[in-house]
Amino acid sequence: MSNVLQTFIQANQPLVEHKLDILIKEIKAPKELKEAMSYSLQAGGKRIRPLYTLAVLEELNITNKDAIIVASTVEMIHTYSLIHDDLPAMDNDDLRRGKPTNHIVFGEALAILAGDALVTLAFGIIARLQHLTAEQKVQLMDQLSFAAGAEGMVGGQVLDMLGEGKSLTLDQLEEVHVNKTGALLSFSILAGGIIANASEEVMDALKKYAFHIGLAFQIQDDILDIEGTSEQLGKTAGKDVLSEKNTYPSILTLDGAREQLQKQYNLAIVALEKVSLHKGLLLEIANYITKRSN
Amino acid sequence: MSNVLQTFIQANQPLVEHKLDILIKEIKAPKELKEAMSYSLQAGGKRIRPLYTLAVLEELNITNKDAIIVASTVEMIHTYSLIHDDLPAMDNDDLRRGKPTNHIVFGEALAILAGDALVTLAFGIIARLQHLTAEQKVQLMDQLSFAAGAEGMVGGQVLDMLGEGKSLTLDQLEEVHVNKTGALLSFSILAGGIIANASEEVMDALKKYAFHIGLAFQIQDDILDIEGTSEQLGKTAGKDVLSEKNTYPSILTLDGAREQLQKQYNLAIVALEKVSLHKGLLLEIANYITKRSN
Repeated sequence: MSNVLQTFIQANQPLVEHKLDILIKEIKAPKELKEAMSYSLQAGGKRIRPLYTLAVLEELNITNKDAIIVASTVEMIHTYSLIHDDLPAMDNDDLRRGKPTNHIVFGEALAILAGDALVTLAFGIIARLQHLTAEQKVQLMDQLSFAAGAEGMVGGQVLDMLGEGKSLTLDQLEEVHVNKTGALLSFSILAGGIIANASEEVMDALKKYAFHIGLAFQIQDDILDIEGTSEQLGKTAGKDVLSEKNTYPSILTLDGAREQLQKQYNLAIVALEKVSLHKGLLLEIANYITKRSN
Repeated sequence: MSNVLQTFIQANQPLVEHKLDILIKEIKAPKELKEAMSYSLQAGGKRIRPLYTLAVLEELNITNKDAIIVASTVEMIHTYSLIHDDLPAMDNDDLRRGKPTNHIVFGEALAILAGDALVTLAFGIIARLQHLTAEQKVQLMDQLSFAAGAEGMVGGQVLDMLGEGKSLTLDQLEEVHVNKTGALLSFSILAGGIIANASEEVMDALKKYAFHIGLAFQIQDDILDIEGTSEQLGKTAGKDVLSEKNTYPSILTLDGAREQLQKQYNLAIVALEKVSLHKGLLLEIANYITKRSN
Protein backbone atom coordinates (compact mmCIF):
# COMPACT_ATOMS: atom_id res chain seq x y z
CA MET A 1 0.00 0.00 0.00
CA SER A 2 1.32 3.46 -0.89
CA ASN A 3 2.16 5.99 1.81
CA VAL A 4 -0.47 8.39 0.53
CA LEU A 5 -3.19 5.78 0.83
CA GLN A 6 -1.93 4.58 4.19
CA THR A 7 -2.01 8.12 5.56
CA PHE A 8 -5.50 8.64 4.18
CA ILE A 9 -6.79 5.41 5.71
CA GLN A 10 -5.13 6.05 9.07
CA ALA A 11 -6.70 9.50 9.20
CA ASN A 12 -10.21 8.53 8.13
CA GLN A 13 -10.89 4.97 9.30
CA PRO A 14 -11.03 5.98 13.00
CA LEU A 15 -13.31 8.91 12.11
CA VAL A 16 -15.78 6.56 10.42
CA GLU A 17 -15.68 4.14 13.34
CA HIS A 18 -16.20 6.94 15.83
CA LYS A 19 -19.10 8.36 13.80
CA LEU A 20 -20.75 4.93 13.56
CA ASP A 21 -20.51 4.66 17.33
CA ILE A 22 -22.05 8.11 17.87
CA LEU A 23 -24.84 7.58 15.33
CA ILE A 24 -26.07 4.51 17.22
CA LYS A 25 -25.58 6.05 20.68
CA GLU A 26 -27.75 9.01 19.66
CA ILE A 27 -30.89 7.04 18.88
CA LYS A 28 -33.60 6.37 21.45
CA ALA A 29 -34.15 2.63 21.24
CA PRO A 30 -34.01 -0.46 23.47
CA LYS A 31 -30.40 -0.92 24.60
CA GLU A 32 -30.41 -4.59 23.52
CA LEU A 33 -31.17 -3.49 19.96
CA LYS A 34 -28.52 -0.77 20.00
CA GLU A 35 -25.96 -3.26 21.29
CA ALA A 36 -26.75 -5.68 18.50
CA MET A 37 -26.48 -2.88 15.91
CA SER A 38 -23.19 -1.58 17.31
CA TYR A 39 -21.66 -5.03 17.73
CA SER A 40 -21.57 -5.65 14.00
CA LEU A 41 -20.78 -2.04 13.08
CA GLN A 42 -17.73 -2.18 15.34
CA ALA A 43 -16.58 -5.63 14.22
CA GLY A 44 -13.82 -4.21 12.04
CA GLY A 45 -13.36 -4.66 8.33
CA LYS A 46 -11.61 -2.55 5.76
CA ARG A 47 -14.29 0.18 5.69
CA ILE A 48 -13.59 0.40 1.98
CA ARG A 49 -17.02 1.86 1.14
CA PRO A 50 -16.96 4.85 3.50
CA LEU A 51 -13.31 5.45 2.61
CA TYR A 52 -14.31 5.58 -1.05
CA THR A 53 -16.93 8.27 -0.40
CA LEU A 54 -14.35 10.36 1.43
CA ALA A 55 -11.64 9.70 -1.17
CA VAL A 56 -13.83 11.00 -3.99
CA LEU A 57 -14.44 14.24 -2.07
CA GLU A 58 -10.73 14.61 -1.36
CA GLU A 59 -9.90 14.09 -5.05
CA LEU A 60 -12.48 16.71 -6.03
CA ASN A 61 -11.11 19.11 -3.39
CA ILE A 62 -14.45 19.45 -1.66
CA THR A 63 -15.05 19.35 2.06
CA ASN A 64 -18.50 18.90 3.56
CA LYS A 65 -19.27 18.22 7.20
CA ASP A 66 -21.94 15.69 6.21
CA ALA A 67 -19.55 13.57 4.13
CA ILE A 68 -18.40 11.44 7.05
CA ILE A 69 -22.04 10.79 8.00
CA VAL A 70 -23.04 9.74 4.48
CA ALA A 71 -19.93 7.53 4.40
CA SER A 72 -21.07 5.93 7.65
CA THR A 73 -24.57 5.20 6.34
CA VAL A 74 -23.04 3.16 3.51
CA GLU A 75 -21.21 1.08 6.12
CA MET A 76 -24.53 0.63 7.96
CA ILE A 77 -26.14 -0.81 4.85
CA HIS A 78 -23.11 -3.05 4.22
CA THR A 79 -23.21 -4.24 7.84
CA TYR A 80 -26.96 -4.96 7.75
CA SER A 81 -26.42 -7.08 4.64
CA LEU A 82 -23.67 -9.07 6.38
CA ILE A 83 -25.88 -9.68 9.46
CA HIS A 84 -28.72 -11.00 7.30
CA ASP A 85 -26.38 -12.99 5.00
CA ASP A 86 -24.87 -14.77 7.99
CA LEU A 87 -28.27 -15.98 9.32
CA PRO A 88 -28.90 -19.74 9.54
CA ALA A 89 -31.52 -19.49 6.77
CA MET A 90 -28.95 -17.83 4.50
CA ASP A 91 -25.19 -18.63 4.63
CA ASN A 92 -25.36 -19.95 8.20
CA ASP A 93 -22.01 -18.49 9.22
CA ASP A 94 -20.91 -18.59 12.86
CA LEU A 95 -17.85 -16.43 12.38
CA ARG A 96 -17.24 -13.14 10.61
CA ARG A 97 -13.83 -11.48 10.72
CA GLY A 98 -12.85 -13.95 13.44
CA LYS A 99 -15.72 -12.95 15.74
CA PRO A 100 -19.03 -14.73 16.42
CA THR A 101 -21.70 -13.49 14.02
CA ASN A 102 -24.56 -11.32 15.21
CA HIS A 103 -27.14 -14.09 15.59
CA ILE A 104 -24.67 -16.26 17.52
CA VAL A 105 -24.27 -13.48 20.10
CA PHE A 106 -27.77 -11.95 20.15
CA GLY A 107 -30.01 -14.69 18.76
CA GLU A 108 -31.66 -14.85 15.37
CA ALA A 109 -34.64 -12.63 16.14
CA LEU A 110 -32.55 -9.72 17.37
CA ALA A 111 -30.08 -10.17 14.50
CA ILE A 112 -32.89 -9.88 11.95
CA LEU A 113 -34.22 -6.79 13.72
CA ALA A 114 -30.76 -5.20 14.09
CA GLY A 115 -30.35 -5.53 10.32
CA ASP A 116 -33.82 -4.09 9.72
CA ALA A 117 -33.05 -1.18 12.05
CA LEU A 118 -29.72 -0.41 10.33
CA VAL A 119 -31.13 -0.19 6.80
CA THR A 120 -34.01 1.98 8.01
CA LEU A 121 -31.74 4.22 10.05
CA ALA A 122 -29.41 4.85 7.10
CA PHE A 123 -32.18 6.61 5.19
CA GLY A 124 -33.30 8.61 8.20
CA ILE A 125 -29.77 9.84 8.86
CA ILE A 126 -29.43 11.08 5.29
CA ALA A 127 -32.83 12.78 5.48
CA ARG A 128 -31.71 14.68 8.59
CA LEU A 129 -28.35 15.98 7.29
CA GLN A 130 -27.63 19.68 7.78
CA HIS A 131 -25.08 20.56 5.09
CA LEU A 132 -26.71 19.22 1.95
CA THR A 133 -29.65 20.56 -0.05
CA ALA A 134 -32.96 18.66 -0.07
CA GLU A 135 -32.24 17.82 -3.71
CA GLN A 136 -28.87 16.27 -2.82
CA LYS A 137 -30.46 14.25 -0.02
CA VAL A 138 -33.20 12.99 -2.32
CA GLN A 139 -30.59 12.02 -4.91
CA LEU A 140 -28.55 10.15 -2.29
CA MET A 141 -31.61 8.26 -1.01
CA ASP A 142 -32.82 7.48 -4.53
CA GLN A 143 -29.44 6.01 -5.45
CA LEU A 144 -28.99 4.25 -2.10
CA SER A 145 -32.38 2.56 -2.40
CA PHE A 146 -31.55 1.48 -5.91
CA ALA A 147 -28.10 0.15 -4.93
CA ALA A 148 -29.21 -1.63 -1.75
CA GLY A 149 -32.59 -3.02 -2.82
CA ALA A 150 -34.20 -5.51 -5.20
CA GLU A 151 -32.54 -3.87 -8.21
CA GLY A 152 -29.11 -4.00 -6.55
CA MET A 153 -27.70 -5.75 -3.50
CA VAL A 154 -30.79 -7.71 -2.38
CA GLY A 155 -31.50 -8.79 -5.96
CA GLY A 156 -27.88 -9.92 -6.32
CA GLN A 157 -28.15 -11.96 -3.15
CA VAL A 158 -31.23 -13.68 -4.59
CA LEU A 159 -29.44 -14.38 -7.89
CA ASP A 160 -26.51 -15.80 -5.93
CA MET A 161 -28.85 -18.13 -4.00
CA LEU A 162 -30.67 -19.23 -7.13
CA GLY A 163 -27.34 -19.95 -8.84
CA GLU A 164 -26.10 -22.27 -6.11
CA GLY A 165 -25.38 -25.76 -7.38
CA LYS A 166 -25.72 -24.60 -11.00
CA SER A 167 -22.97 -23.80 -13.48
CA LEU A 168 -23.18 -20.11 -14.33
CA THR A 169 -21.84 -18.46 -17.46
CA LEU A 170 -19.41 -15.57 -17.10
CA ASP A 171 -22.24 -13.11 -17.87
CA GLN A 172 -24.47 -14.64 -15.20
CA LEU A 173 -21.65 -14.56 -12.65
CA GLU A 174 -20.99 -10.92 -13.53
CA GLU A 175 -24.70 -10.10 -13.06
CA VAL A 176 -24.57 -11.62 -9.57
CA HIS A 177 -21.56 -9.57 -8.55
CA VAL A 178 -22.57 -6.32 -10.21
CA ASN A 179 -25.68 -6.46 -8.04
CA LYS A 180 -24.62 -8.28 -4.89
CA THR A 181 -21.45 -6.32 -4.13
CA GLY A 182 -20.92 -3.89 -7.00
CA ALA A 183 -24.05 -1.79 -6.55
CA LEU A 184 -23.33 -0.65 -3.01
CA LEU A 185 -19.62 -0.14 -3.72
CA SER A 186 -20.67 2.01 -6.68
CA PHE A 187 -23.03 3.98 -4.49
CA SER A 188 -20.24 4.74 -2.04
CA ILE A 189 -18.24 6.28 -4.89
CA LEU A 190 -21.16 8.12 -6.49
CA ALA A 191 -22.21 9.48 -3.09
CA GLY A 192 -18.94 11.43 -3.02
CA GLY A 193 -19.80 12.92 -6.39
CA ILE A 194 -23.32 13.84 -5.28
CA ILE A 195 -22.05 15.55 -2.13
CA ALA A 196 -19.47 17.43 -4.20
CA ASN A 197 -22.06 18.47 -6.80
CA ALA A 198 -19.75 16.95 -9.41
CA SER A 199 -20.30 17.64 -13.12
CA GLU A 200 -22.11 15.12 -15.29
CA GLU A 201 -18.80 14.25 -16.93
CA VAL A 202 -17.18 13.45 -13.59
CA MET A 203 -20.24 11.48 -12.45
CA ASP A 204 -20.08 9.37 -15.62
CA ALA A 205 -16.38 8.69 -15.07
CA LEU A 206 -17.02 7.75 -11.42
CA LYS A 207 -19.82 5.41 -12.51
CA LYS A 208 -17.57 3.61 -14.98
CA TYR A 209 -14.67 3.46 -12.53
CA ALA A 210 -17.02 2.10 -9.85
CA PHE A 211 -18.45 -0.57 -12.14
CA HIS A 212 -15.08 -1.95 -13.17
CA ILE A 213 -13.39 -1.66 -9.80
CA GLY A 214 -16.38 -3.46 -8.23
CA LEU A 215 -15.81 -6.42 -10.53
CA ALA A 216 -12.05 -6.27 -9.93
CA PHE A 217 -12.70 -6.39 -6.18
CA GLN A 218 -14.79 -9.54 -6.55
CA ILE A 219 -12.34 -11.27 -8.88
CA GLN A 220 -9.50 -10.63 -6.42
CA ASP A 221 -11.74 -12.04 -3.65
CA ASP A 222 -12.22 -15.21 -5.67
CA ILE A 223 -8.48 -15.47 -6.41
CA LEU A 224 -7.61 -14.95 -2.74
CA ASP A 225 -9.93 -17.77 -1.73
CA ILE A 226 -7.63 -20.08 -3.72
CA GLU A 227 -4.25 -18.44 -3.14
CA GLY A 228 -4.62 -17.00 0.35
CA THR A 229 -4.29 -18.72 3.70
CA SER A 230 -7.09 -18.75 6.29
CA GLU A 231 -4.81 -16.73 8.55
CA GLN A 232 -4.32 -13.99 5.95
CA LEU A 233 -8.01 -13.85 5.09
CA GLY A 234 -9.51 -14.05 8.58
CA LYS A 235 -11.92 -16.63 7.15
CA THR A 236 -11.64 -20.19 5.88
CA ALA A 237 -9.63 -20.21 2.65
CA GLY A 238 -10.60 -22.64 -0.11
CA LYS A 239 -14.26 -22.58 0.92
CA ASP A 240 -15.44 -21.67 -2.59
CA VAL A 241 -13.82 -24.74 -4.17
CA LEU A 242 -15.14 -27.05 -1.45
CA SER A 243 -18.70 -25.72 -1.82
CA GLU A 244 -18.41 -25.79 -5.65
CA LYS A 245 -19.29 -22.12 -5.80
CA ASN A 246 -19.31 -20.30 -9.12
CA THR A 247 -16.24 -18.06 -9.15
CA TYR A 248 -14.08 -16.33 -11.74
CA PRO A 249 -11.33 -18.98 -11.38
CA SER A 250 -13.90 -21.82 -11.63
CA ILE A 251 -15.21 -20.42 -14.91
CA LEU A 252 -12.04 -18.88 -16.38
CA THR A 253 -9.21 -20.83 -14.65
CA LEU A 254 -6.91 -19.01 -12.27
CA ASP A 255 -4.87 -17.46 -15.09
CA GLY A 256 -8.04 -16.38 -16.88
CA ALA A 257 -9.30 -14.76 -13.70
CA ARG A 258 -6.01 -12.87 -13.30
CA GLU A 259 -6.33 -11.61 -16.89
CA GLN A 260 -9.93 -10.54 -16.25
CA LEU A 261 -8.81 -8.73 -13.11
CA GLN A 262 -6.22 -6.79 -15.07
CA LYS A 263 -8.78 -5.95 -17.75
CA GLN A 264 -11.28 -4.56 -15.25
CA TYR A 265 -8.53 -2.62 -13.48
CA ASN A 266 -7.43 -1.05 -16.77
CA LEU A 267 -10.97 -0.04 -17.71
CA ALA A 268 -11.40 1.58 -14.30
CA ILE A 269 -8.24 3.65 -14.71
CA VAL A 270 -9.11 4.66 -18.29
CA ALA A 271 -12.40 6.06 -16.99
CA LEU A 272 -10.50 8.17 -14.45
CA GLU A 273 -8.04 9.46 -17.06
CA LYS A 274 -10.84 11.12 -19.02
CA VAL A 275 -11.49 13.48 -16.12
CA SER A 276 -7.86 13.65 -14.93
CA LEU A 277 -8.57 11.83 -11.69
CA HIS A 278 -6.12 9.00 -12.44
CA LYS A 279 -3.15 10.04 -10.35
CA GLY A 280 -4.52 10.28 -6.85
CA LEU A 281 -6.37 8.29 -4.22
CA LEU A 282 -8.79 6.58 -6.61
CA LEU A 283 -5.81 5.06 -8.44
CA GLU A 284 -4.19 4.10 -5.15
CA ILE A 285 -7.34 2.36 -3.92
CA ALA A 286 -7.67 0.53 -7.23
CA ASN A 287 -4.06 -0.64 -6.89
CA TYR A 288 -4.68 -1.75 -3.35
CA ILE A 289 -7.89 -3.62 -4.23
CA THR A 290 -6.30 -5.59 -7.03
CA LYS A 291 -3.10 -6.40 -5.17
CA ARG A 292 -4.37 -6.96 -1.62
CA SER A 293 -3.71 -10.25 0.18
CA ASN A 294 -6.78 -10.16 2.43
CA MET B 1 -69.59 1.02 9.02
CA SER B 2 -71.09 4.28 7.71
CA ASN B 3 -71.99 4.65 4.05
CA VAL B 4 -69.49 7.48 3.61
CA LEU B 5 -66.65 5.33 4.87
CA GLN B 6 -67.78 2.31 2.91
CA THR B 7 -67.87 4.34 -0.31
CA PHE B 8 -64.42 5.76 0.45
CA ILE B 9 -62.94 2.32 1.10
CA GLN B 10 -64.57 0.76 -1.94
CA ALA B 11 -63.18 3.53 -4.12
CA ASN B 12 -59.65 3.56 -2.73
CA GLN B 13 -58.76 0.05 -1.59
CA PRO B 14 -58.61 -1.32 -5.16
CA LEU B 15 -56.50 1.67 -6.23
CA VAL B 16 -53.95 0.90 -3.50
CA GLU B 17 -53.89 -2.78 -4.42
CA HIS B 18 -53.45 -1.99 -8.09
CA LYS B 19 -50.68 0.51 -7.34
CA LEU B 20 -48.86 -2.02 -5.15
CA ASP B 21 -49.02 -4.49 -8.01
CA ILE B 22 -47.65 -1.96 -10.52
CA LEU B 23 -44.89 -0.72 -8.22
CA ILE B 24 -43.46 -4.26 -7.95
CA LYS B 25 -43.98 -5.09 -11.63
CA GLU B 26 -41.97 -2.00 -12.59
CA ILE B 27 -38.75 -2.97 -10.85
CA LYS B 28 -35.96 -4.89 -12.56
CA ALA B 29 -35.24 -7.74 -10.19
CA PRO B 30 -35.20 -11.56 -10.15
CA LYS B 31 -38.75 -12.79 -10.72
CA GLU B 32 -38.59 -15.09 -7.67
CA LEU B 33 -37.93 -12.05 -5.47
CA LYS B 34 -40.71 -10.02 -7.08
CA GLU B 35 -43.13 -12.92 -6.60
CA ALA B 36 -42.26 -13.15 -2.91
CA MET B 37 -42.72 -9.38 -2.50
CA SER B 38 -46.05 -9.34 -4.34
CA TYR B 39 -47.39 -12.44 -2.61
CA SER B 40 -47.50 -10.73 0.77
CA LEU B 41 -48.49 -7.33 -0.62
CA GLN B 42 -51.49 -8.94 -2.31
CA ALA B 43 -52.49 -11.10 0.66
CA GLY B 44 -55.35 -8.79 1.62
CA GLY B 45 -55.83 -6.97 4.88
CA LYS B 46 -57.74 -3.85 5.72
CA ARG B 47 -55.19 -1.47 4.10
CA ILE B 48 -55.97 0.86 6.96
CA ARG B 49 -52.64 2.71 6.72
CA PRO B 50 -52.80 3.71 3.05
CA LEU B 51 -56.49 4.53 3.47
CA TYR B 52 -55.56 6.86 6.33
CA THR B 53 -53.06 8.75 4.16
CA LEU B 54 -55.71 9.23 1.48
CA ALA B 55 -58.43 10.10 4.01
CA VAL B 56 -56.35 12.94 5.46
CA LEU B 57 -55.90 14.42 2.00
CA GLU B 58 -59.61 14.11 1.26
CA GLU B 59 -60.46 15.84 4.55
CA LEU B 60 -58.03 18.65 3.74
CA ASN B 61 -59.49 18.95 0.22
CA ILE B 62 -56.15 18.38 -1.43
CA THR B 63 -55.47 16.11 -4.37
CA ASN B 64 -51.98 15.04 -5.37
CA LYS B 65 -51.09 12.36 -7.90
CA ASP B 66 -48.32 11.06 -5.65
CA ALA B 67 -50.65 10.46 -2.67
CA ILE B 68 -51.63 6.96 -3.74
CA ILE B 69 -47.96 6.06 -4.19
CA VAL B 70 -46.97 7.35 -0.75
CA ALA B 71 -49.96 5.47 0.69
CA SER B 72 -48.68 2.31 -0.99
CA THR B 73 -45.17 2.69 0.43
CA VAL B 74 -46.64 2.64 3.95
CA GLU B 75 -48.32 -0.67 3.11
CA MET B 76 -44.96 -1.97 1.83
CA ILE B 77 -43.33 -1.18 5.17
CA HIS B 78 -46.25 -2.76 7.05
CA THR B 79 -46.04 -5.87 4.86
CA TYR B 80 -42.25 -6.21 5.29
CA SER B 81 -42.74 -6.08 9.07
CA LEU B 82 -45.35 -8.86 8.89
CA ILE B 83 -43.07 -11.05 6.74
CA HIS B 84 -40.20 -10.70 9.21
CA ASP B 85 -42.48 -11.04 12.28
CA ASP B 86 -43.86 -14.33 10.96
CA LEU B 87 -40.39 -15.91 10.55
CA PRO B 88 -39.56 -19.03 12.60
CA ALA B 89 -37.01 -17.05 14.64
CA MET B 90 -39.69 -14.49 15.52
CA ASP B 91 -43.41 -15.40 15.94
CA ASN B 92 -43.10 -18.58 13.85
CA ASP B 93 -46.51 -18.19 12.23
CA ASP B 94 -47.54 -20.49 9.38
CA LEU B 95 -50.71 -18.63 8.52
CA ARG B 96 -51.51 -14.96 7.99
CA ARG B 97 -55.01 -13.87 6.99
CA GLY B 98 -55.83 -17.51 6.28
CA LYS B 99 -52.96 -17.93 3.81
CA PRO B 100 -49.55 -19.60 4.26
CA THR B 101 -46.99 -17.04 5.42
CA ASN B 102 -44.23 -15.86 3.11
CA HIS B 103 -41.50 -18.17 4.40
CA ILE B 104 -43.83 -21.18 4.17
CA VAL B 105 -44.32 -20.50 0.47
CA PHE B 106 -40.91 -19.12 -0.54
CA GLY B 107 -38.56 -20.39 2.17
CA GLU B 108 -36.94 -18.43 4.96
CA ALA B 109 -34.06 -16.94 2.97
CA LEU B 110 -36.28 -15.45 0.29
CA ALA B 111 -38.77 -14.24 2.91
CA ILE B 112 -36.00 -12.35 4.74
CA LEU B 113 -34.81 -10.84 1.46
CA ALA B 114 -38.34 -9.96 0.27
CA GLY B 115 -38.80 -8.00 3.50
CA ASP B 116 -35.42 -6.32 3.07
CA ALA B 117 -36.30 -5.41 -0.51
CA LEU B 118 -39.68 -3.93 0.47
CA VAL B 119 -38.34 -1.60 3.15
CA THR B 120 -35.55 -0.43 0.85
CA LEU B 121 -37.90 0.06 -2.09
CA ALA B 122 -40.32 2.19 -0.06
CA PHE B 123 -37.65 4.87 0.41
CA GLY B 124 -36.59 4.75 -3.24
CA ILE B 125 -40.17 5.18 -4.44
CA ILE B 126 -40.63 8.28 -2.29
CA ALA B 127 -37.31 9.71 -3.50
CA ARG B 128 -38.48 9.34 -7.12
CA LEU B 129 -41.92 10.99 -6.79
CA GLN B 130 -42.81 13.63 -9.37
CA HIS B 131 -45.45 15.81 -7.67
CA LEU B 132 -43.80 16.68 -4.38
CA THR B 133 -40.96 19.07 -3.61
CA ALA B 134 -37.58 17.73 -2.53
CA GLU B 135 -38.32 19.17 0.92
CA GLN B 136 -41.58 17.23 1.18
CA LYS B 137 -39.85 14.03 0.09
CA VAL B 138 -37.09 14.52 2.66
CA GLN B 139 -39.69 15.13 5.35
CA LEU B 140 -41.58 11.98 4.39
CA MET B 141 -38.41 9.86 4.42
CA ASP B 142 -37.23 11.38 7.70
CA GLN B 143 -40.56 10.57 9.37
CA LEU B 144 -40.85 7.16 7.72
CA SER B 145 -37.39 6.14 8.91
CA PHE B 146 -38.24 7.31 12.40
CA ALA B 147 -41.59 5.48 12.44
CA ALA B 148 -40.35 2.24 10.92
CA GLY B 149 -36.92 1.92 12.56
CA ALA B 150 -35.23 1.41 15.91
CA GLU B 151 -37.02 4.42 17.40
CA GLY B 152 -40.40 3.16 16.20
CA MET B 153 -41.66 -0.12 14.81
CA VAL B 154 -38.47 -2.19 15.02
CA GLY B 155 -37.77 -0.91 18.53
CA GLY B 156 -41.35 -1.79 19.54
CA GLN B 157 -40.91 -5.28 18.20
CA VAL B 158 -37.76 -5.66 20.32
CA LEU B 159 -39.58 -4.35 23.43
CA ASP B 160 -42.40 -6.80 22.76
CA MET B 161 -39.93 -9.70 22.53
CA LEU B 162 -38.10 -8.63 25.68
CA GLY B 163 -41.42 -8.36 27.54
CA GLU B 164 -42.49 -11.92 26.74
CA GLY B 165 -43.06 -13.98 29.85
CA LYS B 166 -42.82 -10.89 32.07
CA SER B 167 -45.67 -8.92 33.64
CA LEU B 168 -45.66 -5.44 32.11
CA THR B 169 -47.13 -2.33 33.68
CA LEU B 170 -49.71 -0.34 31.72
CA ASP B 171 -47.01 2.22 30.84
CA GLN B 172 -44.66 -0.48 29.57
CA LEU B 173 -47.44 -2.06 27.50
CA GLU B 174 -48.30 1.35 26.05
CA GLU B 175 -44.64 1.91 25.14
CA VAL B 176 -44.61 -1.39 23.22
CA HIS B 177 -47.70 -0.50 21.23
CA VAL B 178 -46.88 3.16 20.62
CA ASN B 179 -43.73 1.90 18.91
CA LYS B 180 -44.65 -1.47 17.48
CA THR B 181 -47.89 -0.52 15.74
CA GLY B 182 -48.60 3.11 16.63
CA ALA B 183 -45.57 4.69 14.97
CA LEU B 184 -46.28 3.47 11.44
CA LEU B 185 -50.02 4.12 11.77
CA SER B 186 -49.14 7.65 12.87
CA PHE B 187 -46.83 8.05 9.90
CA SER B 188 -49.62 7.07 7.52
CA ILE B 189 -51.74 9.90 8.94
CA LEU B 190 -48.93 12.47 9.08
CA ALA B 191 -47.90 11.61 5.53
CA GLY B 192 -51.26 12.95 4.36
CA GLY B 193 -50.53 16.20 6.19
CA ILE B 194 -47.04 16.46 4.70
CA ILE B 195 -48.34 15.89 1.15
CA ALA B 196 -51.06 18.51 1.75
CA ASN B 197 -48.57 21.03 3.17
CA ALA B 198 -50.84 21.24 6.22
CA SER B 199 -50.39 24.02 8.78
CA GLU B 200 -48.50 23.38 12.00
CA GLU B 201 -51.80 23.47 13.87
CA VAL B 202 -53.32 20.77 11.69
CA MET B 203 -50.13 18.67 11.90
CA ASP B 204 -50.24 18.85 15.70
CA ALA B 205 -53.90 17.78 15.72
CA LEU B 206 -53.15 14.90 13.34
CA LYS B 207 -50.24 13.81 15.57
CA LYS B 208 -52.47 13.72 18.66
CA TYR B 209 -55.30 11.99 16.83
CA ALA B 210 -52.84 9.43 15.44
CA PHE B 211 -51.32 8.72 18.84
CA HIS B 212 -54.64 8.04 20.54
CA ILE B 213 -56.28 6.20 17.68
CA GLY B 214 -53.18 3.98 17.44
CA LEU B 215 -53.64 2.93 21.06
CA ALA B 216 -57.40 2.50 20.54
CA PHE B 217 -56.69 0.22 17.59
CA GLN B 218 -54.43 -1.98 19.71
CA ILE B 219 -56.85 -2.12 22.67
CA GLN B 220 -59.66 -3.21 20.36
CA ASP B 221 -57.31 -5.87 18.93
CA ASP B 222 -56.72 -7.19 22.43
CA ILE B 223 -60.44 -7.15 23.24
CA LEU B 224 -61.29 -8.96 20.00
CA ASP B 225 -58.79 -11.70 20.82
CA ILE B 226 -61.01 -12.48 23.83
CA GLU B 227 -64.47 -11.69 22.45
CA GLY B 228 -64.12 -12.59 18.79
CA THR B 229 -64.29 -15.98 17.12
CA SER B 230 -61.46 -17.38 14.99
CA GLU B 231 -63.79 -17.22 12.01
CA GLN B 232 -64.48 -13.49 12.50
CA LEU B 233 -60.81 -12.69 13.05
CA GLY B 234 -59.25 -14.84 10.34
CA LYS B 235 -56.72 -15.93 12.96
CA THR B 236 -56.83 -18.05 16.11
CA ALA B 237 -58.92 -16.26 18.76
CA GLY B 238 -57.86 -16.53 22.40
CA LYS B 239 -54.20 -16.92 21.46
CA ASP B 240 -53.12 -14.04 23.73
CA VAL B 241 -54.59 -15.65 26.84
CA LEU B 242 -53.12 -19.04 26.00
CA SER B 243 -49.65 -17.58 25.45
CA GLU B 244 -49.98 -15.39 28.58
CA LYS B 245 -49.31 -12.30 26.51
CA ASN B 246 -49.42 -8.88 28.12
CA THR B 247 -52.60 -7.20 26.85
CA TYR B 248 -54.90 -4.40 27.95
CA PRO B 249 -57.50 -6.87 29.27
CA SER B 250 -54.80 -8.88 31.12
CA ILE B 251 -53.61 -5.74 32.90
CA LEU B 252 -56.90 -3.80 33.23
CA THR B 253 -59.57 -6.53 33.03
CA LEU B 254 -61.93 -6.60 30.06
CA ASP B 255 -64.09 -3.79 31.45
CA GLY B 256 -61.04 -1.69 32.23
CA ALA B 257 -59.79 -2.22 28.67
CA ARG B 258 -63.15 -1.09 27.28
CA GLU B 259 -62.94 2.05 29.41
CA GLN B 260 -59.40 2.71 28.21
CA LEU B 261 -60.54 2.25 24.62
CA GLN B 262 -63.29 4.84 25.10
CA LYS B 263 -60.81 7.23 26.71
CA GLN B 264 -58.34 6.99 23.83
CA TYR B 265 -61.15 7.37 21.30
CA ASN B 266 -62.39 10.51 23.04
CA LEU B 267 -58.91 12.06 23.12
CA ALA B 268 -58.51 11.36 19.41
CA ILE B 269 -61.77 13.11 18.56
CA VAL B 270 -61.03 16.09 20.84
CA ALA B 271 -57.79 16.62 18.90
CA LEU B 272 -59.74 16.70 15.64
CA GLU B 273 -62.30 19.16 17.00
CA LYS B 274 -59.62 21.81 17.55
CA VAL B 275 -59.05 22.01 13.81
CA SER B 276 -62.66 21.26 12.79
CA LEU B 277 -61.81 17.90 11.26
CA HIS B 278 -64.14 15.97 13.59
CA LYS B 279 -67.12 15.38 11.34
CA GLY B 280 -65.70 13.55 8.35
CA LEU B 281 -63.68 10.51 7.39
CA LEU B 282 -61.23 10.68 10.29
CA LEU B 283 -64.15 10.40 12.72
CA GLU B 284 -65.67 7.59 10.66
CA ILE B 285 -62.41 5.63 10.66
CA ALA B 286 -62.05 6.15 14.42
CA ASN B 287 -65.61 4.82 14.88
CA TYR B 288 -64.87 1.85 12.69
CA ILE B 289 -61.59 1.04 14.46
CA THR B 290 -63.12 1.04 17.91
CA LYS B 291 -66.27 -0.88 16.94
CA ARG B 292 -64.91 -3.37 14.39
CA SER B 293 -65.35 -7.10 14.91
CA ASN B 294 -62.26 -8.20 13.00
